[in-house]
Amino acid sequence: MRLVTFRKPHKLGTHLGALREDGAVLDLAAVDPALAGGNMPAFIAGGAPALQHARAALARAPVAEDAVLCAPIPRPPKNIFCVGKNYHEHAKEFAGSGFDASAKEVVPEAPVVFSKPATAIIATGETIPAHLDPTGSTDYEGELAVVIGQGGRGIPAATALKHVFGYTIVNDVTARTLQHRHRQWVLGKGIDGFCPMGPAILTADAVPDPKALRVVTHVNGEKRQDAPVADLIFDIPTLIAAISAGITLEPGDVIATGTPVGVGIGFTPPQFLKAGDVVRVEVAGIGVLENPVG
Amino acid sequence: MRLVTFRKPHKLGTHLGALREDGAVLDLAAVDPALAGGNMPAFIAGGAPALQHARAALARAPVAEDAVLCAPIPRPPKNIFCVGKNYHEHAKEFAGSGFDASAKEVVPEAPVVFSKPATAIIATGETIPAHLDPTGSTDYEGELAVVIGQGGRGIPAATALKHVFGYTIVNDVTARTLQHRHRQWVLGKGIDGFCPMGPAILTADAVPDPKALRVVTHVNGEKRQDAPVADLIFDIPTLIAAISAGITLEPGDVIATGTPVGVGIGFTPPQFLKAGDVVRVEVAGIGVLENPVG
Repeated sequence: MRLVTFRKPHKLGTHLGALREDGAVLDLAAVDPALAGGNMPAFIAGGAPALQHARAALARAPVAEDAVLCAPIPRPPKNIFCVGKNYHEHAKEFAGSGFDASAKEVVPEAPVVFSKPATAIIATGETIPAHLDPTGSTDYEGELAVVIGQGGRGIPAATALKHVFGYTIVNDVTARTLQHRHRQWVLGKGIDGFCPMGPAILTADAVPDPKALRVVTHVNGEKRQDAPVADLIFDIPTLIAAISAGITLEPGDVIATGTPVGVGIGFTPPQFLKAGDVVRVEVAGIGVLENPVG
Repeated sequence: MRLVTFRKPHKLGTHLGALREDGAVLDLAAVDPALAGGNMPAFIAGGAPALQHARAALARAPVAEDAVLCAPIPRPPKNIFCVGKNYHEHAKEFAGSGFDASAKEVVPEAPVVFSKPATAIIATGETIPAHLDPTGSTDYEGELAVVIGQGGRGIPAATALKHVFGYTIVNDVTARTLQHRHRQWVLGKGIDGFCPMGPAILTADAVPDPKALRVVTHVNGEKRQDAPVADLIFDIPTLIAAISAGITLEPGDVIATGTPVGVGIGFTPPQFLKAGDVVRVEVAGIGVLENPVG
């Protein structure tokens, strides 16, 4: 099941929906008041019973004709956790680019975790405001993201996948010059609109093995990134264990797992995003996250 | 006026209060239903009219006899923004400690900004769980913190103080070995309970010049830090301008401005916190943030 958050044009409030194969959005709350509220973290916190309601509603739910997709989780409980330098070939291209202020090593000895605030999150179709980066060094990073279901602290890697509600896509858009200048990465990566997310959350039951997923990024139709999640340096269970070792994860928390080789700074000269470009990140099964640049 | 968030023993829910000179907590909502809800960011978003209600309630509000102080903002809209290496003498002691994985320079050229999630926030009096740091390298960092009132993006330094709702105290507790190991600082600084905050928010009208405030930290009664906010490398208007350049600040967002010289890693050998220690951070006018270590 692919769950979405959607809104209706010119109306306040968000709704819980399901994305059908043909792209139609099904309005789940229309047939089950238990699914009202339109708050994805609250729905996720409802656990298996809430998911059961959604599944039952699926067959009867009407198409929301005028639905506009929001990011599936527009306001996670915490800033989005993001992981840096988590694919070998990307770690090399980043180290070679001159934009990594912290690199003593190419491949990190432990997960490099930073965060992006909710104000950075936008939906598929919305414009990445590259004009907010005064340094003109805006870059894309297509990534698989994990949505936490049952929370907790001290989650062992061995059982970590049981805490995954589902998977979505994040474009970890980055102002490279700011990322380097401020040393820590919140300012270079947390700019408004620099976190496209979506289009949907593919529930974990549909993903027997997340390592089999594949992240593919196109810029203006040209393929730039194409890697299996199996290539992660620190895999998903390791990331959940590392973050939750000290930090209590909560339902609806999001972990973007890192980007593969092929970002703009991997080119000589770097190929930064400019107004009019279109970035498309795809993970088969989850869908397509496509955003114009403005 | 010193505003607090408090709860009642064995009851759900929080309440808006004011901290009297003698330490008594006044229950503001008890005399004005407009102040009910106990959600500080929502109250702050109410702007001048909400503040007017609070001031008017002050004279008539009864003492909440059994009040237990919470952090004044237990769940800010975003992770707390924190600033690293923002006092000259501290930047030197940190560079000399060997724990800074990013240092190419002692004094940063631009603000070094990272974040701590809300799950790290605890109130004055609550225990800092140093036992959650498996590396035994837990350190204190007493800091003045800014609470944002009216939000916005692109706030110029010249008018930034108009966006300050008030000031509180944060202890930016840090697992030094994790801070170094993970390069980016969320994991080393975001551990549950590693962000004591409080006791109160001193409203901005009572602080004509934040540079005149002074941060003083004691560990077990021994003075460790004592510095005027005037010593900040990047002052408060500069920090607000730098963060809001790309990121929309919201009412209730918190910016911890950095710690002065005198943290545990400034000693040879380092003096890390251990169970039984008591850390007391004081800013005259705001109050005392005191936490035992467990």
